[in-house]
Amino acid sequence: MVKVAVLGYGTIGRGVVTVLQGNADTIEKKAGKRVEVKKILDLRDFPGDPNADKVVHDYEEIRTDGEIQIVVECMGGLEPAYTFVKTALQQGRSVATSNKELVAKYGAELIEIAKENTCNFLFEASVGGAIPIIRPLLSCLTADKIEEIAGILNGTTNYMLSKMEREGADFHEVLKEAQAKGYAELHPEADIEGWDACRKIAILTSLAYEKQVDFEDIPTEGITNITAEDIMYAKKMERTIKLIGQSWISEGKVYAMVSPMLIEMDHPLAPVKGVFNAIFVHGNMVDDVMFYGQGAGSLPTASAVAADVVDCVKHIGKTVKINWSKEKLALGDIGGFERKFFVRLPGDTPEDKIRDLFGEVEMITVPGLDEKAFVTKAIKENDFDKAAAAVNVINRIRLH
Amino acid sequence: MVKVAVLGYGTIGRGVVTVLQGNADTIEKKAGKRVEVKKILDLRDFPGDPNADKVVHDYEEIRTDGEIQIVVECMGGLEPAYTFVKTALQQGRSVATSNKELVAKYGAELIEIAKENTCNFLFEASVGGAIPIIRPLLSCLTADKIEEIAGILNGTTNYMLSKMEREGADFHEVLKEAQAKGYAELHPEADIEGWDACRKIAILTSLAYEKQVDFEDIPTEGITNITAEDIMYAKKMERTIKLIGQSWISEGKVYAMVSPMLIEMDHPLAPVKGVFNAIFVHGNMVDDVMFYGQGAGSLPTASAVAADVVDCVKHIGKTVKINWSKEKLALGDIGGFERKFFVRLPGDTPEDKIRDLFGEVEMITVPGLDEKAFVTKAIKENDFDKAAAAVNVINRIRLH
Repeated sequence: MVKVAVLGYGTIGRGVVTVLQGNADTIEKKAGKRVEVKKILDLRDFPGDPNADKVVHDYEEIRTDGEIQIVVECMGGLEPAYTFVKTALQQGRSVATSNKELVAKYGAELIEIAKENTCNFLFEASVGGAIPIIRPLLSCLTADKIEEIAGILNGTTNYMLSKMEREGADFHEVLKEAQAKGYAELHPEADIEGWDACRKIAILTSLAYEKQVDFEDIPTEGITNITAEDIMYAKKMERTIKLIGQSWISEGKVYAMVSPMLIEMDHPLAPVKGVFNAIFVHGNMVDDVMFYGQGAGSLPTASAVAADVVDCVKHIGKTVKINWSKEKLALGDIGGFERKFFVRLPGDTPEDKIRDLFGEVEMITVPGLDEKAFVTKAIKENDFDKAAAAVNVINRIRLH
Repeated sequence: MVKVAVLGYGTIGRGVVTVLQGNADTIEKKAGKRVEVKKILDLRDFPGDPNADKVVHDYEEIRTDGEIQIVVECMGGLEPAYTFVKTALQQGRSVATSNKELVAKYGAELIEIAKENTCNFLFEASVGGAIPIIRPLLSCLTADKIEEIAGILNGTTNYMLSKMEREGADFHEVLKEAQAKGYAELHPEADIEGWDACRKIAILTSLAYEKQVDFEDIPTEGITNITAEDIMYAKKMERTIKLIGQSWISEGKVYAMVSPMLIEMDHPLAPVKGVFNAIFVHGNMVDDVMFYGQGAGSLPTASAVAADVVDCVKHIGKTVKINWSKEKLALGDIGGFERKFFVRLPGDTPEDKIRDLFGEVEMITVPGLDEKAFVTKAIKENDFDKAAAAVNVINRIRLH
């Protein structure tokens, strides 16, 4: 029997308890031992809840309980999650977490502390929710040099873009509806500004290249500027607009970025709709692989956390090797990276001027829109910005 | 330094050597030790090949070489692969294989022998080529009850169906072209009759339910009856035809089957085109997940084999737990399972007779085809067969 404490009894924490209790027999078979939720930390009380008697309000009750071997952290945010997790690891207790902020910021350090204390710090659910991606990166794609990771890493924005595409609806209209349905939060900035996707691509990139990628270093752009007109142009180009968290290698340098991108319809990420997430990986040998599933949701995310608990049980007394050093990975300068841009200018912009500024371009017209819209050749971001400053850009979107 | 022998220097074996040598530094970092290909078993000589000096013609030279710790089996077929692999495991050498026939037939036994000899028998590449699916099933989806696995498990047939769909082409025409391009073999039965997919779903189902699923027990139907007309009807129904290897749980029983199926366009398997494979898994907690990638090809498949080699190196002296007992899993009787069928009958079949035989149906018409085509309600396979025997069925395809 292995006893577990769950920190936070919100959407994910409650899901973890449901999975650990509801699939207890399956889990026992896979883990080799029975797993029992002994204590749940939350500031609130839950009268009537079947686990109400397990709820404690003070972390001290968990810290000092010598029976607890595994701690599941589902509180979110940096504090007090960081302090609690660190304390648990220093006590030699393994930790499973779904907390992407914690992992992006302190992943390397917590992995090191786990190693020093011969326990484990696992975080499969911190990226892509239910999707197995961390473990496949660490234990399946081990014979490859990873050349690109591109992910639809945020369900809220993918739901919104899918809906805009399907209904020709406007961003603000769709946001309001998503908030009413609970798919978007009342303060939706972390999703729509790309900050959530940014932390997730930082984690994946750190794991792929085994060094610390600071999320603050990743140029990040959200979807707030995407309009119904952009979607019309995308259709004309037989592409779809997705918020992509991406990292890639070019001339020996690792680049990373989060931004809306125009994806070709036959790319495996293109059909990923609604709240689903997907992570595309290109390796120098494996070619293209993709992992798809629920990026959020109580039980799906909890399933990934519970699978980490199973792994913690299987590895009591040893540490699963995770190469992610504290050494900082210097990212390549995005300004010097070449790519194609889709650009919309007012209808009265002379085409000569466009070609003077942007070089050869391919014009795109959508009936009813009095604009000059075009796709550039691959040009450096810096050069593009310089050219764009000389005209009145309505919007511009990167091509994948 | 860990020394490896590769059995078979064909498409996959050559790929494995390329990956192990070409990505040697990456692999050393992940495995923690340098990996070197010491000997290659093949009946042929390879003059001019950079590894020509490693080629031996007699397995004895590998068996008696005390330096070899890991054996990679890429010969295919049951013998002599089975004997060689068994011998290696009995010597305490770990084995990585891409051989689905070997794994489907002897997987449970070879896993047991590996355990007895404290080494490993790993076979990630035997299903889905490059796609990480075996390891995710064993170590990621461990908190779930698996309720369905549905896979596009054969690239040749998926390439053919995609081409028929895109070009409105006929089966035999597409087969000829695929053979000319090398995508289909001159004796293509294993692919087009579904036998290859059958072995793969047998392996996945054995792993999901931890008992031996004999591939001979799985009802298997290929794509040889699929016509351009079927594709026209599929489009009308907003579905796509895929060869699906599937297993699922219904009322406590495990069912398995390989057959062409009409898949809804918004199912994650629907957009999987060409030679790509994908495996969809539904768990009671994780909901839907899908794994996508190259189902074949020298380097992609070799990447998965080489990742197994890395795992073998990491686990020298211990056995990675794989639950797959020799105990036979009794599959549910497909005849008693209810599902919807799409059916095509001659144009002069009276609709009254159709409704008498099949019950309520939804008629489907395609302009220019003088047929009576329809979709049944969910009915038992046995009852469907009885009804179908009373009319002149042109074709019938199961709905997913």
